[in-house]
Amino acid sequence: MGVRSADSTCPIARTVDIIGDRWSLLIIRDAFDGVRRFSQFQRSLGIARNILAARLRDLVATGVLRVEPASDGSSYQEYVLTGKGEDLFDLMVSLRQWGQDHAFGPGEPRSVLVDATTDQPVPRLSYRAPDGRQVRARATRVRKVDEPDQPV
Amino acid sequence: MGVRSADSTCPIARTVDIIGDRWSLLIIRDAFDGVRRFSQFQRSLGIARNILAARLRDLVATGVLRVEPASDGSSYQEYVLTGKGEDLFDLMVSLRQWGQDHAFGPGEPRSVLVDATTDQPVPRLSYRAPDGRQVRARATRVRKVDEPDQPV
Repeated sequence: MGVRSADSTCPIARTVDIIGDRWSLLIIRDAFDGVRRFSQFQRSLGIARNILAARLRDLVATGVLRVEPASDGSSYQEYVLTGKGEDLFDLMVSLRQWGQDHAFGPGEPRSVLVDATTDQPVPRLSYRAPDGRQVRARATRVRKVDEPDQPV
Repeated sequence: MGVRSADSTCPIARTVDIIGDRWSLLIIRDAFDGVRRFSQFQRSLGIARNILAARLRDLVATGVLRVEPASDGSSYQEYVLTGKGEDLFDLMVSLRQWGQDHAFGPGEPRSVLVDATTDQPVPRLSYRAPDGRQVRARATRVRKVDEPDQPV
């Protein structure tokens, strides 16, 4: 790993430091899917125990997951998304939609996000400003912290 | 690294296999920011040359970046987002907004996504269905490929 960006002024860099690796992203996906126990994550991901333990510990330390006693009263621990973790739903949607668009051949079977009540596929979502306007990359730029103030 | 998910039926897993590591995500961020040359990426990221070369090669191989001759006529190569790469804008927005919400203290300086014409900050974006409806994680679930068809 390289230099961490905890002191970066870029919000993307800070997010990537917290959840920007393959296993963390897949653990968060599984947590949204209702996976809660160590052994369930391990089975779902085919991941080495020590790596899974380290990732879960990090995600708890950064407040994305929290540990709870088992819901069935057994002695197992369960890992559950916090509110901060649940706010990663948009990120999951972004990863899912891009994969649907660019990583499958036509007709290739894939899992689908559906409405929990109607079981109908969720329509394609797009990012909208509060006024309903869609924002395109080319119409934006990133203003850095050290940039001189622009005339408005 | 563990098992790759190129044959996964989960679109999130396939996306994560293509761009789900810290350096790839930061390279893509820089590409959206107008960074084009090897030396510029290296300076921006503080990344080892061999790792940067490997990540750029992978991102070209998967069609996220393409190589172009230098725009100034020099002999340098430039790395530019393809259309498939530009479709990662939503993912960049998700990473940025979550970082803004959860990885900065109040008043801590940070870079801001602004409108390229007006220089005004882009308002907070949220995912909307074509009918304008917002979709919440709790109102959805993922239907797996091997699930029996649900009665509709």
